[in-house]
Amino acid sequence: MRTYNDYLQTINTAIAQISYPAQPQQLYEPIAYTMALGGKRLRPVLALMSCEALGGNTDDVLLPAVGLELFHNFTLLHDDVMDRADVRRGKPTVHRRWNDNVAILSGDAMLTMATQYVARADTRHLPAVIDLFNRTAMEIYEGQQWDMDYELRSNVGVDEYIEMIRLKTSVLLGCACRLGAIMADAADADCQAMYDMGMNLGLAFQLQDDALDVWGDPATFGKEIGGDIMNNKKTFLLINAIQRVTGDDAMELRRWLNDPEAERDIKVPAVTALYERLGLRALSDRAIEAYNAAALKALAATSMSDEAKQSFASLIISLTTRKS
Amino acid sequence: MRTYNDYLQTINTAIAQISYPAQPQQLYEPIAYTMALGGKRLRPVLALMSCEALGGNTDDVLLPAVGLELFHNFTLLHDDVMDRADVRRGKPTVHRRWNDNVAILSGDAMLTMATQYVARADTRHLPAVIDLFNRTAMEIYEGQQWDMDYELRSNVGVDEYIEMIRLKTSVLLGCACRLGAIMADAADADCQAMYDMGMNLGLAFQLQDDALDVWGDPATFGKEIGGDIMNNKKTFLLINAIQRVTGDDAMELRRWLNDPEAERDIKVPAVTALYERLGLRALSDRAIEAYNAAALKALAATSMSDEAKQSFASLIISLTTRKS
Repeated sequence: MRTYNDYLQTINTAIAQISYPAQPQQLYEPIAYTMALGGKRLRPVLALMSCEALGGNTDDVLLPAVGLELFHNFTLLHDDVMDRADVRRGKPTVHRRWNDNVAILSGDAMLTMATQYVARADTRHLPAVIDLFNRTAMEIYEGQQWDMDYELRSNVGVDEYIEMIRLKTSVLLGCACRLGAIMADAADADCQAMYDMGMNLGLAFQLQDDALDVWGDPATFGKEIGGDIMNNKKTFLLINAIQRVTGDDAMELRRWLNDPEAERDIKVPAVTALYERLGLRALSDRAIEAYNAAALKALAATSMSDEAKQSFASLIISLTTRKS
Repeated sequence: MRTYNDYLQTINTAIAQISYPAQPQQLYEPIAYTMALGGKRLRPVLALMSCEALGGNTDDVLLPAVGLELFHNFTLLHDDVMDRADVRRGKPTVHRRWNDNVAILSGDAMLTMATQYVARADTRHLPAVIDLFNRTAMEIYEGQQWDMDYELRSNVGVDEYIEMIRLKTSVLLGCACRLGAIMADAADADCQAMYDMGMNLGLAFQLQDDALDVWGDPATFGKEIGGDIMNNKKTFLLINAIQRVTGDDAMELRRWLNDPEAERDIKVPAVTALYERLGLRALSDRAIEAYNAAALKALAATSMSDEAKQSFASLIISLTTRKS
């Protein structure tokens, strides 16, 4: 098995070779801009690794894998319009750098481009690949809609939150792993196990994201700590805090949630301390470990070689114990 | 050959059978709302007619044809956000009835649903059908971007305008006709001729749309006459007027274009009279006839029966001489 960086390089080369028509400039420039922002390229890397681990040729899955990365970046582009986010990976978001109309239309074009790349699977695998991709896309829109709905509701349950992040984030990792397996002509049981592995990895990954916003190291996290706390974002931590808090802590939490003028230097450490008093750091760690274990169990059930399993296990552990 | 209404009924039955998940409500309700607004269903009807006229079975093309109608309505939904349009087919647009975020996300879901329906072509035809659909979608986004660009430019040429409406409107009619031909296993020459027929029909159709806004019969047009004139919309007529107008008429036109307070009862008849003095009604009629003739010529080149050709010829003439 090759290393993550080997796969990443293959993906980044393919992404650099995407050709964008020069005109109309306002349609294609934002797509090129978005794809040049970089990132972990986790979804296409998972697709390539999964294909190779199950005996396939990564060349066969490369363009569909690029399609998944185009799709993922399209969702970020439109989500940033809906969430009025100004910055993405240290740069202005498309709707800030251009405007809302440019972001809407170039996002639409990016979704169709993603489908074009996914559809470059060979004819024999095309029906299964297109079906998987479109079903996953619908789930991701559902997740984004639940996310927006939940921001307006005060009584979101932990189970609802987990189902929301499963749809919004995790299914695309499951889809990437299954895509690789399909292109390797893997048996149905392997395809399903790879999907389960990717999906559980995705859940652990997202919970780790919630935790890093609170306990991440500012030096390596890449963005300011406490963004979710400042925005009262309904994360795994806040939802659990609301359900568990009592007495003086309940009053304090309510005060922080209802104070739009709160200063970052005071609110972030105070809410973090409150989360720690409630034992949420340990709770979060246990949940991450449980999804981690489920991902590793699904991995163990596949027919891939021990060497390939070891590569995936290392990746799962590094992603869900990551610091940035 | 069956009549337009026969095909329309088949399409409307299939559209009524689209199943939308109940939840999340804000994601799926706007899609059902949009599809229930009705319309001519021109694109799927063309796909069914084309398939049958070339010896195919309309059952094979029905779901992909519904996909084209979903796609068309998705573009209207997102265009209405970008154009800040309040009303569509006599009802509030999605972004007005709900909000911008709902319109963006339910539009995205509608595009993926459209792709799901298009991808229900049988396996043998799937690669060609998906490729045609995605390429057409990219052209339509380009057309919408040019349309928005041109609204900010004072010197748009007639050729640029024709190319814009070709991309924004006409290629989808060409795509619908070609889709029907592909599903009928028609020869490449027939597929291409059907595309050319649909595209030229689309150009004539759009120029007729521009003309109806000025010279339509308020009793049958379905919306208020003069909307384009009030919005200074760069139609075939206004672009030609700007290029041809001289002397006092030039001063008058400039005054109307720069008077945001102009009253409808005065501006619309005045600009209409100006268009007539410039001979634009005859110019528009000649252009429509030319695209009509090109559509009929492409039709004549196909291998379909004389009876089928007669059905298409009647449709082309009725659509491009329509009053509403």
